[in-house]
Amino acid sequence: MGVSCPERLVLEHVTSRWGVLILIALLERSYRFSELRRAVGGVSEKMLTQTLQTLERDGFVHRDAKPVIPPRVDYSLTALGREAAEQVGGLARWTARRMGEVQEARERYDSVRASSQ
Amino acid sequence: MGVSCPERLVLEHVTSRWGVLILIALLERSYRFSELRRAVGGVSEKMLTQTLQTLERDGFVHRDAKPVIPPRVDYSLTALGREAAEQVGGLARWTARRMGEVQEARERYDSVRASSQ
Repeated sequence: MGVSCPERLVLEHVTSRWGVLILIALLERSYRFSELRRAVGGVSEKMLTQTLQTLERDGFVHRDAKPVIPPRVDYSLTALGREAAEQVGGLARWTARRMGEVQEARERYDSVRASSQ
Repeated sequence: MGVSCPERLVLEHVTSRWGVLILIALLERSYRFSELRRAVGGVSEKMLTQTLQTLERDGFVHRDAKPVIPPRVDYSLTALGREAAEQVGGLARWTARRMGEVQEARERYDSVRASSQ
């Protein structure tokens, strides 16, 4: 994939640090902004706003601003976003299943490093 | 996924900007460092080194330093890394297939923004 490929940029949005976690959270259900912020964990308001805007612009997230008082905004996946989120969610589940192997690999790596110093 | 979950960190490695592109490149074949740098495109030496070390430590990438002159180091996927890379590659192919829909979504988003200003 070339540096300036448009696909590469979209792939970066879907796999961005917060993009991944937002997509996975929205797989379960729609969220209001503040709920989503708690569900994702560790994200600043600014980064959540920016990432949601990027995902909305790409057509992955639907932003539903209800004309009520106080204002209520719900975020959910579009059909396209759900396809992306399912793949990202699959990768997250795979990662969780493989954590034992990752831990073993890290211990091997660290012990080789330690013994060569 | 909680902020301090170990899975979340591994998922971040696999979906990191350069991690994604390295895994996809290595799906095709093994690479020497300088070849890989060209194949990925846009990555600095420092970032490529760091990302490869992270992926090696997690057990996704195998680093094979051959005792020859001049030194030769090949990078390839482990069996675990191949599983991760296939999923990331699937997401990249999906993104490429869906670029038309993403472009349409962006045009709609930008035209709504333009008309509301």
